[in-house]
Amino acid sequence: MSRNELVYSFLFYGLIFSRVHSNPIVNAPHRTVFNYPVTGSSSVSAPAQTVYNSTYPLTTPVKASDGSVEFRIAIIADQDKLSKDKKDSSFYVSYLKSGTFTIKSQWTGGAIVWDHAAAAEPAKTVGEKERLITSNGKAIQSQFAFGSRGMELSDLIVFNGKLYACDDRTGIVFQLVNHTAVPWVILADGNGMKQKGFKCEWSIVKDQHLYVGSHSADIKFPHTEGPSVEAPQRWIKRISKDGLVEHLDWNPVYDAMENHLGIKAPGYVMHETVLWSEKLRKWYFMPRQISSLNHTEERHPYTCNNVMIIANEDFSEFRNISIGEPNPLFGFSAARFVPGTDDSVIIALRIMEIDDLFSTRIVVFSITGTILLVEEEVLEGLKYEGLEFI
Amino acid sequence: MSRNELVYSFLFYGLIFSRVHSNPIVNAPHRTVFNYPVTGSSSVSAPAQTVYNSTYPLTTPVKASDGSVEFRIAIIADQDKLSKDKKDSSFYVSYLKSGTFTIKSQWTGGAIVWDHAAAAEPAKTVGEKERLITSNGKAIQSQFAFGSRGMELSDLIVFNGKLYACDDRTGIVFQLVNHTAVPWVILADGNGMKQKGFKCEWSIVKDQHLYVGSHSADIKFPHTEGPSVEAPQRWIKRISKDGLVEHLDWNPVYDAMENHLGIKAPGYVMHETVLWSEKLRKWYFMPRQISSLNHTEERHPYTCNNVMIIANEDFSEFRNISIGEPNPLFGFSAARFVPGTDDSVIIALRIMEIDDLFSTRIVVFSITGTILLVEEEVLEGLKYEGLEFI
Repeated sequence: MSRNELVYSFLFYGLIFSRVHSNPIVNAPHRTVFNYPVTGSSSVSAPAQTVYNSTYPLTTPVKASDGSVEFRIAIIADQDKLSKDKKDSSFYVSYLKSGTFTIKSQWTGGAIVWDHAAAAEPAKTVGEKERLITSNGKAIQSQFAFGSRGMELSDLIVFNGKLYACDDRTGIVFQLVNHTAVPWVILADGNGMKQKGFKCEWSIVKDQHLYVGSHSADIKFPHTEGPSVEAPQRWIKRISKDGLVEHLDWNPVYDAMENHLGIKAPGYVMHETVLWSEKLRKWYFMPRQISSLNHTEERHPYTCNNVMIIANEDFSEFRNISIGEPNPLFGFSAARFVPGTDDSVIIALRIMEIDDLFSTRIVVFSITGTILLVEEEVLEGLKYEGLEFI
Repeated sequence: MSRNELVYSFLFYGLIFSRVHSNPIVNAPHRTVFNYPVTGSSSVSAPAQTVYNSTYPLTTPVKASDGSVEFRIAIIADQDKLSKDKKDSSFYVSYLKSGTFTIKSQWTGGAIVWDHAAAAEPAKTVGEKERLITSNGKAIQSQFAFGSRGMELSDLIVFNGKLYACDDRTGIVFQLVNHTAVPWVILADGNGMKQKGFKCEWSIVKDQHLYVGSHSADIKFPHTEGPSVEAPQRWIKRISKDGLVEHLDWNPVYDAMENHLGIKAPGYVMHETVLWSEKLRKWYFMPRQISSLNHTEERHPYTCNNVMIIANEDFSEFRNISIGEPNPLFGFSAARFVPGTDDSVIIALRIMEIDDLFSTRIVVFSITGTILLVEEEVLEGLKYEGLEFI
């Protein structure tokens, strides 16, 4: 299908291709100890010491003879309730759609070519949306669920040389290995003492730790009473490469940002996209929605925003820029810095969600707000919430 | 109901009541960082340093004026497929049955009095087994599942001053707080790179780490080809107090034990009960089942055993003793050392499981094999797989 071979052409301004790492290690089990001593020792063998694996992306970019450079890229779907397999209700399905992102020679343009549908396994999900779904990525199935929902994967990230995705129902961070989902850590909601899974929505790598965050706002119970009321969506998780989970109270961060934006409860800001630049030591927040009014079912889908908020590391300074023209229907769901650009170029997804009506678009822009690739549709009918260079 | 007030009388030999700790801390979130700095600092605040909490049991034993000592004790149910709530299929239920274990004055006897049914919440599960289930413990519900099964809690343990139970379907270790189940860590099966949850069956504390193990045998696929074939049930997990999970290959341990017992594939040993004595630096294995023949559905329920295998720390020496008379229908499912006995007395559960027919018995014996409390029925109709001093 032609929709699987969407090609975008665009101009790049001043791209400088630099850091490229190789040696991907994606199959190594974490902290595995083999050969437990049976004789001759009175102590347990120490776990193998591992060092942080900074490989990024996992696939070495290919430089062609014409000077163009090809990256492997992937996006991952959060289909909400449609994730449940209609044939076997004990299975839940997400979709990983991969492709090649090419920067042309002389840095004069680029293109994204999605992998052909022939490479995709037939998905188990059937029904009215079967055609769209089966042609748009390779299925990743799992039997893990919370409240009969699962595999609503909200972000995709390379960390410590491995590919991870977080399910916003179970709060399980899965390692993805050849399209299988291996449970790695589980994130309890809020301060880590809640019964339900963390509603993870965004993830970044900072100082060799994986940070996973949520919306910041619970639209069912707006945070009307200030930081003293614990809102589970205002905690974030910091995870070491070995899987040690810490629970961080980000009320002060979100409060400061809302103060900067002039948003007061019952207004709210919904985050699904945050970037951290190790190089520039700055945070980039691209809220999916910003509403100065209280939440209503009717208003919510039309509160999407095009602002990017830039903060220094300790959140003592904030400033805004606008990304393209405002479109209240499409809000950011994922973003990554393009490797080799010194964190000066961002590729991002923007999604529309009105009831069960989904659409995903892709856009490339500079951190100064210049549009490099005009927003175009990736595909209609699916909601892709994660994007990563793989 | 009288079955909720079962009282056992028995003699104790040479019990010496000693180590009793207090100050239970069961509600503190693990590794929580409050007050993320917003201004004035360029670094993330370090997580609060915590020390290992060796409180055991969690409730300070009470010494009465007549010289008797009361402990709080609890057992936890693994109801297999019956765990699913029949009214709301997105919920799964286990039962925590608590009681008081009294050692009489002069150490001449003891008693267990289970808490009255009036203290139990009505369980949500209904159907033919409703009466038995609602009268036999307080329900603990969760919405976490793997393959539409969940809350099949296989062991109960106090670790780092908290109460934990592991679900043998999801592989989630839950912290139990006031009868709510908070997900703490998730254990992927086998070497930690499997899609499914670890079939956890036993847990012990060793050197300030929580060890969680499985059956050692996969009865569907007996380990006929030796250690080179990875059997998920022959890996164990070592978990730090902060939730760092390591995967240990225990093939050598299980091989050595089977060699000692003279069991060769397709024969098998099924473990649900292991004890580690910090004081004596010895392992105590009480296999639920030992079969010198291959697994068949018909034979399996009748392969229960009464052997206890004692091993030194590095598994270089093994020896056996028998616990009471052999009864091929009842095998060990849980055990703990009685606090204050210098790890010389064990209280244990033995269960029967023939199709959906369950029964749980309780027994107390010394580590030299002397029966101190003759095996008696706790209750018919439920399978309790975990026991702990709480």
